[in-house]
Amino acid sequence: MDIHQLTRDLHTKGDSKIVMLVADGLGGLPMKPGGPTELEAARTPNMDALAARGIQGASLPVAPGIAPGSGPGHLGLFGYDPLKFLIGRGALEATGIGLELQDGDVAIRCNFCTLDQDGKIVDRRAGRIPTEESAPLAKRLRQVSIPGIEIIVEPVKEHRFVVVLRGEGLGGNVRDTDPQATGVPPLDPVANDPDSQKTVEVAKEFLVQARQLLADEPKANFHTMRGFASKPALPSYREVYGLRAAAIAVYPMYKGLARLVGMEIVGQAQTLDEQIQILQDQWDAYDFFFLHFKYTDSTGEDGNFEAKVQRTEELDEAIPRISALNPDVLIITGDHSTPAYLKSHSWHPVPTLLVSDCCRPDGLTQFNEGTCIRGGLGHFEAKYLMCLALANAGRLGKFGA
Amino acid sequence: MDIHQLTRDLHTKGDSKIVMLVADGLGGLPMKPGGPTELEAARTPNMDALAARGIQGASLPVAPGIAPGSGPGHLGLFGYDPLKFLIGRGALEATGIGLELQDGDVAIRCNFCTLDQDGKIVDRRAGRIPTEESAPLAKRLRQVSIPGIEIIVEPVKEHRFVVVLRGEGLGGNVRDTDPQATGVPPLDPVANDPDSQKTVEVAKEFLVQARQLLADEPKANFHTMRGFASKPALPSYREVYGLRAAAIAVYPMYKGLARLVGMEIVGQAQTLDEQIQILQDQWDAYDFFFLHFKYTDSTGEDGNFEAKVQRTEELDEAIPRISALNPDVLIITGDHSTPAYLKSHSWHPVPTLLVSDCCRPDGLTQFNEGTCIRGGLGHFEAKYLMCLALANAGRLGKFGA
Repeated sequence: MDIHQLTRDLHTKGDSKIVMLVADGLGGLPMKPGGPTELEAARTPNMDALAARGIQGASLPVAPGIAPGSGPGHLGLFGYDPLKFLIGRGALEATGIGLELQDGDVAIRCNFCTLDQDGKIVDRRAGRIPTEESAPLAKRLRQVSIPGIEIIVEPVKEHRFVVVLRGEGLGGNVRDTDPQATGVPPLDPVANDPDSQKTVEVAKEFLVQARQLLADEPKANFHTMRGFASKPALPSYREVYGLRAAAIAVYPMYKGLARLVGMEIVGQAQTLDEQIQILQDQWDAYDFFFLHFKYTDSTGEDGNFEAKVQRTEELDEAIPRISALNPDVLIITGDHSTPAYLKSHSWHPVPTLLVSDCCRPDGLTQFNEGTCIRGGLGHFEAKYLMCLALANAGRLGKFGA
Repeated sequence: MDIHQLTRDLHTKGDSKIVMLVADGLGGLPMKPGGPTELEAARTPNMDALAARGIQGASLPVAPGIAPGSGPGHLGLFGYDPLKFLIGRGALEATGIGLELQDGDVAIRCNFCTLDQDGKIVDRRAGRIPTEESAPLAKRLRQVSIPGIEIIVEPVKEHRFVVVLRGEGLGGNVRDTDPQATGVPPLDPVANDPDSQKTVEVAKEFLVQARQLLADEPKANFHTMRGFASKPALPSYREVYGLRAAAIAVYPMYKGLARLVGMEIVGQAQTLDEQIQILQDQWDAYDFFFLHFKYTDSTGEDGNFEAKVQRTEELDEAIPRISALNPDVLIITGDHSTPAYLKSHSWHPVPTLLVSDCCRPDGLTQFNEGTCIRGGLGHFEAKYLMCLALANAGRLGKFGA
């Protein structure tokens, strides 16, 4: 019996409200031995006050030692076992630029490349062609026409763009055409299973037409196809938790991930202030709110410790406005740590704080990388956080009699 | 998706070095209420200094309450789920005396026994016949000849010896011939699956010839066969982690276990000093070093608390020579605890310490049974230790995008 079988059977209705505030990349490392971590360095009086009322723990996004990308990181927080529910690269890329995939779609990440006159790749990224040159070329590929197939082409950045194939009987299990080498021609797409054979035929025809459309380009005279992926089949928040869920995010990637689990995307906030305004406005319409704050991750990725500390403090300052809504359950967590020291997502457990009137407070009065490992939630897999949220919200019945 | 699927996909190359120092049986119990444990009683300034720079935790060798033998204990540390990868008794016994099993071999533990004139067992261990008497008898059994089968017979100790059958089509799933009782004849070998039928025929013929060869012996006039086992199929360190791994151990059992996962056995050290000398000599040739220290276990098995404390201190004194090599990741752990109080392997979590520049130190300044349960690694299954080692060594890429 997995988590969702339990929550499907046990969830109950109610009017309680859950807010999950995801500070992307929350938690870090000392920049030098003996130094403070990002959360230790930040002045966070509001989080510390919540810690005194709440219970904290160290959440493992996937498994010990495993640093997740945004996809598995968020799936875990949403309660979907990230080792069971995999989002293919193409689907994630499409999601990240705001394309709304439908059941049966196949999404493909594409890279413009440069071929020599013999058809061999001389540059796998077309000289990292700038976006202002590549975007019109991607849009030109919208002229590709294949009977019975709807084709969506969307520029991403530099040499990258996304193709979505929409039609009957398209499987997503197709090998990359990028040979990962220069001096050789691109590979033909090959199906890994019979259900993906039609996708291969469509992809081949797309490539034939694309080659003609790009033939005269000096740099981007062809493209490869990578990370073929069907829309992942994720049961919805409403089905597995009985929750009307809203996502309040600024960036397309996180809106997209939320949409994949059936959350509704509300508002078009560009700032944290606007996000909280939307939270207030939508308070009565939903049971669960996913608030995504990006900048604790991006500053970590930049290796900018001071900026990450500052962004953490900025988040802390916003918390009273959230608390003022009196959510029955307020969770502050991250999808993974992004230590400025590593300039990347990491495997370290994520400080996670849960406040409710029945959370069993653990007596800690601060909230950071050092305190969370001694918290009452212990070290736990992120995929269980939603069960804790539901339980603390009075939305989960007894298991067995 | 299991751990090795993850590490196979995610491991990266690099020139970082990992040292895993396994103090067999590390950790223990107070000899009386309120007394110190072995690690608490030992003066370990070097481990304590590492604790201040590192992160510790309590590693569960198999599962709560389960005391492992050396086989599952080490498999867990090596990252192989000990409940999934089973080493049959015969294979472990052969490994323990330094026999190098080949794919397709079947290893069998044998006990000399005493039969009466009716062929019924009167002593299942042939009066615990001394090794100096039993070893020549085991060697006499090398005269057994079966067409198409290579036969290896090796004495072990007292009534015990090992037979390895090498040939085509030999399965390892055969029932013991030891009836676990006296006053009855030995059982015939019986196959549990069709693939092991040929093994049964070979074993029967072996037993017929052995009976003749031993007929005139007063005590050891026959033997039973137990723990039939094929060589376990374990993927190699190179395959699952991308590591060139070296094992530096004194005892055959630990060399054998390391060999089963594809480590190379380097040197012929007889002392810890010699082991560390080999570590220094081989530093450039490998990415991963398994150093095995036996005496924290053997003293525990003897129930000799003071001796175990002394051996722990001896190990501590050797640590600066290891640290001087500046491994990127240094791990100190055990395959299980062996409390002198219990005189046996135990189920208690094993104090485990990991030091790297990005380990997120947990602020603890000692390393023992009491501190490890409050450490930043939490309570974790030993099988995840290799993921943590790879991550801290910068040898594991991101999971998902």
